[in-house]
Amino acid sequence: MLDRPHKGDEVATMMDEMGRKARAAARVLAIAPAQQKTQALEAMAAALVAASDDIIEANRRDMEEGEKAGLSPAMLDRLKLTRERVQAIADGVRAIAALDDPVGAVIAAWDRPNGLKIERVRTPLGVIGVIYESRPNVTADAGALCLKAGNAVILRGGSDSVNSSSAIHACLARGLEEAGLPAEAIQYVPTTDRAAVGEMLKGLSGNLDVIVPRGGRSLVERVQTEARVPVFAHLEGLCHLYVDASADLDMAVKLAVNAKMRRTGICGAAETLLVDRAAAATHLEPILAALSAAGCEVRGDAAVIATLPTATPATEEDWSTEYLDAIISAKLVDGVEGAIDHIGRYSSSHTEAIVAEDAQAVEKFFREVDSAILLHNASTQFADGGEFGMGAEIGIATGRMHARGPVGVEQLTSFKYRVHGSGQTRP
Amino acid sequence: MLDRPHKGDEVATMMDEMGRKARAAARVLAIAPAQQKTQALEAMAAALVAASDDIIEANRRDMEEGEKAGLSPAMLDRLKLTRERVQAIADGVRAIAALDDPVGAVIAAWDRPNGLKIERVRTPLGVIGVIYESRPNVTADAGALCLKAGNAVILRGGSDSVNSSSAIHACLARGLEEAGLPAEAIQYVPTTDRAAVGEMLKGLSGNLDVIVPRGGRSLVERVQTEARVPVFAHLEGLCHLYVDASADLDMAVKLAVNAKMRRTGICGAAETLLVDRAAAATHLEPILAALSAAGCEVRGDAAVIATLPTATPATEEDWSTEYLDAIISAKLVDGVEGAIDHIGRYSSSHTEAIVAEDAQAVEKFFREVDSAILLHNASTQFADGGEFGMGAEIGIATGRMHARGPVGVEQLTSFKYRVHGSGQTRP
Repeated sequence: MLDRPHKGDEVATMMDEMGRKARAAARVLAIAPAQQKTQALEAMAAALVAASDDIIEANRRDMEEGEKAGLSPAMLDRLKLTRERVQAIADGVRAIAALDDPVGAVIAAWDRPNGLKIERVRTPLGVIGVIYESRPNVTADAGALCLKAGNAVILRGGSDSVNSSSAIHACLARGLEEAGLPAEAIQYVPTTDRAAVGEMLKGLSGNLDVIVPRGGRSLVERVQTEARVPVFAHLEGLCHLYVDASADLDMAVKLAVNAKMRRTGICGAAETLLVDRAAAATHLEPILAALSAAGCEVRGDAAVIATLPTATPATEEDWSTEYLDAIISAKLVDGVEGAIDHIGRYSSSHTEAIVAEDAQAVEKFFREVDSAILLHNASTQFADGGEFGMGAEIGIATGRMHARGPVGVEQLTSFKYRVHGSGQTRP
Repeated sequence: MLDRPHKGDEVATMMDEMGRKARAAARVLAIAPAQQKTQALEAMAAALVAASDDIIEANRRDMEEGEKAGLSPAMLDRLKLTRERVQAIADGVRAIAALDDPVGAVIAAWDRPNGLKIERVRTPLGVIGVIYESRPNVTADAGALCLKAGNAVILRGGSDSVNSSSAIHACLARGLEEAGLPAEAIQYVPTTDRAAVGEMLKGLSGNLDVIVPRGGRSLVERVQTEARVPVFAHLEGLCHLYVDASADLDMAVKLAVNAKMRRTGICGAAETLLVDRAAAATHLEPILAALSAAGCEVRGDAAVIATLPTATPATEEDWSTEYLDAIISAKLVDGVEGAIDHIGRYSSSHTEAIVAEDAQAVEKFFREVDSAILLHNASTQFADGGEFGMGAEIGIATGRMHARGPVGVEQLTSFKYRVHGSGQTRP
């Protein structure tokens, strides 16, 4: 089924059928006992380990195709699976199995003067569509997280990783079946035809409740423009690090290097350094020198160029570029106010950090910057569901509806009200 | 501006301009002190009372037009404003003023082993579009609630109430100005041209973050089909009351009459009565007799017709009809399982109630029915933000994304994470 071409109508019919099966599976999952879901997740992890060789062999085919297609070394590295990486994927699924079951958890409870006892309890969202690009591990992470939250999921992976993802998906389906849950709870779209994405964006005749796009700007923009169903937007991470004049210099140097250089390819990596003009004489040079010494290219304004000989001028485009590479844009701003203005103009509302000892500056930054994650005296690279203690995440949502920041198991749920009375009528 | 016709392009330009002004106002509101918002709300309430005569005069013109246009008595009653009703609208705004300010409230807080202190705090959503029909009080309720939550709002009222709503809106704008907040924080669309709704559904060039439709099925369906921005769906209230064989008979009779007949025109009114087949001999007749005695028309299945001489046969359409009138559909079902099946098939996911003494039946009903509000031994007419202790509501959301159930001040917010560190870098 993977290799033969699909006509548009055929794809539409197939996707609609997947939607119907997902809805039916979601009904079963919504009331499945926590223990049964845990059992399925553990069986999935075991199946992944047992199928390591098959998964790596499937991945070898993807890698060959990728090399032929001229994927960049960074892309090929994201795609590549090794025995250790498959083990890490299985461990991730086991970690999700070990999380508390969110479904039925009481989020809030209060009593009314008339004796009504009101509880707000978590429920599944329904059917989730995840559209992602090259990393095959998303297949397992997203599938497992959706299941834990009692949702059915339709996974549409990138064409680069279709063999790897299919092999991983087979293990997830096996785990579901071993636990007596419908295999259709986690479906993988078995075609690389882009028409399948179009069908998902139309909502599969009402059988898709929300779409989570995970990928580059063009994918996310297509999803946001075309989707007729709610979307958990995952824009890029154009993260800023602002160094206030009150900042401890050593800390600022250490945080700037970590925020930019620890891993340059993740969405929590800093892309722009903003330094308080009042600290130009004291903080700018040591920070730029440390970044440069760590192998980072610096593009900056006049002050930056005057300070660091190797720096080149930043263009307007640089301020809105997510490099995902060892490059940073840098400039002076007029205090926290100037930082807030710059961030308001260029940020993708993902993550921003302030380095400061002045509590008022921090409070102003925290109050006025409207991004999903704000950090004080900590690296932007902490923008991660695992680092937040959520166990696992499907991505970082940059929108303001429903989910924001790391999307973990809880963010993949809705809620309902349960009200207990003793015969109350409304006067 | 109200009375002259608008060409499509003119409407588009005007709406786009409203969107830009709303976005600018939202930036101011997002960081406005709680006290300033409270002051604005109190000034609005005072302005409403002071302008009572003008509002009633404007309403008189709407009533005249409505009578000419042949509105039903029920529609005219919803439209009508009296001195008492204007006072009640002002009291409602004052009650919203007295609520706790949600913006900046800490929803959750936890520490990480590495010393990071994480807080999840409430933020405004941004710009909200409210599209509603005849009731002019929604102008004040929605405007005040959105302001309290730090959001700008664009209100599109029904053409029936355009004069009343404009007069009320003038008082809201006055309150904002008296408190030194931008009047554009609450804008009222000054045209009855339906193209204005179309522009809102397109999202006003990214300046509208969410749409709240409040009205009948055709409005809500248009919004859900056409909207390119997130929607807090407010479907109709096709509410069910299920009477289990374990129900206390007196309580069941009392609850059925209240759920249906207290007010028949609200979305929390019961529309379908489901009675456990095991209680056919004991419970069915007294409940039907009480409903009939209270003036309710009953449409039912064979058992109902055999029990109540005045009952008429229910058609398939009856099971999916929100009567909003003194009519109920009624049938026997096979226990709680049968009730869950019927509700799953016909419910609008708004509110359902179970009358039962059997805790297992209640637990099954609460676990398996996926509606926003579930009640045990209480009237469906409690489906209301005020009755839930939320102070006020903009409606009852029937979707599962972001808001569900009564949409009060908290449901009109988003959140962000504030993380305090002491120099942590990610290993």
